[in-house]
Amino acid sequence: MHVGLGPIGAAVARQLAARSSFRIVAAVDIDENKSGRDVGDVIDLGRRLRVKVNGDLRKAAKASRPDIAVLCTSSSLKGVMPQLEQLLKLRLPVVSTTEELAYPAARNRRLAKQLDAMARKAKVAVLGTGVNPGFTMDALPIALTSVCEQVNRIEVRRVQDARTRRVPFQQKIGAGLTREQFEQQVAAGSVRHVGFTESIQMIGDAMGWKLTRITDEVRPWIAEEEVCSELLAVDPGYVAGLSQEGVGYVGDEAKILLQLDAYLGAPESFDSVLIDGSPRIYSKVQGGIHGDIATASMTVNSIPHVIAAAPGLRTMRDMPLPSFYASR
Amino acid sequence: MHVGLGPIGAAVARQLAARSSFRIVAAVDIDENKSGRDVGDVIDLGRRLRVKVNGDLRKAAKASRPDIAVLCTSSSLKGVMPQLEQLLKLRLPVVSTTEELAYPAARNRRLAKQLDAMARKAKVAVLGTGVNPGFTMDALPIALTSVCEQVNRIEVRRVQDARTRRVPFQQKIGAGLTREQFEQQVAAGSVRHVGFTESIQMIGDAMGWKLTRITDEVRPWIAEEEVCSELLAVDPGYVAGLSQEGVGYVGDEAKILLQLDAYLGAPESFDSVLIDGSPRIYSKVQGGIHGDIATASMTVNSIPHVIAAAPGLRTMRDMPLPSFYASR
Repeated sequence: MHVGLGPIGAAVARQLAARSSFRIVAAVDIDENKSGRDVGDVIDLGRRLRVKVNGDLRKAAKASRPDIAVLCTSSSLKGVMPQLEQLLKLRLPVVSTTEELAYPAARNRRLAKQLDAMARKAKVAVLGTGVNPGFTMDALPIALTSVCEQVNRIEVRRVQDARTRRVPFQQKIGAGLTREQFEQQVAAGSVRHVGFTESIQMIGDAMGWKLTRITDEVRPWIAEEEVCSELLAVDPGYVAGLSQEGVGYVGDEAKILLQLDAYLGAPESFDSVLIDGSPRIYSKVQGGIHGDIATASMTVNSIPHVIAAAPGLRTMRDMPLPSFYASR
Repeated sequence: MHVGLGPIGAAVARQLAARSSFRIVAAVDIDENKSGRDVGDVIDLGRRLRVKVNGDLRKAAKASRPDIAVLCTSSSLKGVMPQLEQLLKLRLPVVSTTEELAYPAARNRRLAKQLDAMARKAKVAVLGTGVNPGFTMDALPIALTSVCEQVNRIEVRRVQDARTRRVPFQQKIGAGLTREQFEQQVAAGSVRHVGFTESIQMIGDAMGWKLTRITDEVRPWIAEEEVCSELLAVDPGYVAGLSQEGVGYVGDEAKILLQLDAYLGAPESFDSVLIDGSPRIYSKVQGGIHGDIATASMTVNSIPHVIAAAPGLRTMRDMPLPSFYASR
């Protein structure tokens, strides 16, 4: 069952509809422009799925008896708690793209405990995942440390040329704004990647580092010359995108550095991991991992694992090796 | 408890001795030059561990009551079955570098079933792991597919300049032999990387591909000019190392290609993974992952996971996300 058919929820639903191991039995969205319509039409699938979008989560679940709920409504754990509570009362396992659920950080510890207790009571698992947080800047670097006898410091960089990404993504990174507008939107929380604190905490716990401070700062990339994507042109002096840096400290020592540079005109897209340890490891995914497809894929591929997982709030750290899940 | 103190077993033991979360309580080796001596001396640790190498597995285990056995005696599953049987009768979880145990292939299905039954009866887990098989050419490529909505074909390449590796490794890849000697040793099984069939089967199962045929061929790299390592010089026309290619087919289609080129003088060491799918992913570890340290690290880092795992024969596919395990 789908809960939330925004851009990410729709991408997950399109993938589920295309892959023969899965069947969408219900979909929920509170948007009046979506509820009552066929899911296939709402997600631009090009065919109908004979499932109507419902405005009422409980009714939709009761009528369709799904095996799992896919929750794609908000980045905020606090924001999705009422939905999670409803789903767990229905004893439904949940996989969600809610960034703050990927590895609930210090500020969300209380909610995480509450959620874990509810999930255990319902005898189902809850997992927050996606490409980032969920993989490129946490689970993948952690997996790479498995061949190390010693780890001193971890640096992860994700550089993305936003010219090839969808317009909402370009907006999310502030492309086209003035410097002042950018700062305002950062302050308002609308321009920012959500998940650095969660990824840093996940890596820190895996490495056994007691982090004393986590920072997460966003700065603008200012265009030096005109840069254009298909639908957006940014003049010199305006914002081309963002540069976000997260650091996990033990005392004064920066043990974990995550850097995300997403802007129109980045000369090269890539995802790199440097493990400063023994052995030293430098891994690079050339061209980077495409965010939209990857988040939807990770969510879909996690479904069988979440259904089979031990009850409770799970994270990518205690789930089995992530993998593509094939039709069988 | 250590079983087997050859080059790999000794590397694992040195790492355990250096890492404060672990303590070596017993060690077993049938070599008369090792048994009776202090483990620290046998593994060239530079200090004694006050644990004597024992020739008798059962006695050593009974006297020391270990939490887990680390088995590093042979590449062959058939070869280690009597030891595994003894360890499981003692209800000891086992982590092993036995390559054929990493993902028991078709020819070993019967032994794998038997082993799984014994482990379940003993209520402990058994895992075969290491860097290869166990990570670079199977678990890592599988993990990278988790962000894909479609996977058509997987190619993994491991290129190693053997000049920087230990002499036994250089011998294992046939460096210094004539072409005829090389072919003889390949036929005898002494020059060959063990594990391609296992890695290919692991990837195939994860992708849901019903493989109809797996090939595994070894060819020599012939030196075109003189190449030297610190302790070995190879004249032109002699063997500088090996090139091994494993292919997993579905019908006539090569779905999985593993290629290992290990020879003195390789211009660049690296580990690369190409996922031909959506999205397409090309990942490269520059400099490669050092085999000896990495196999020992992976074995040590797996210990807490194996102790906590569900009883039975486990593989890297159903273990939690691999990770460095820190002192706590």
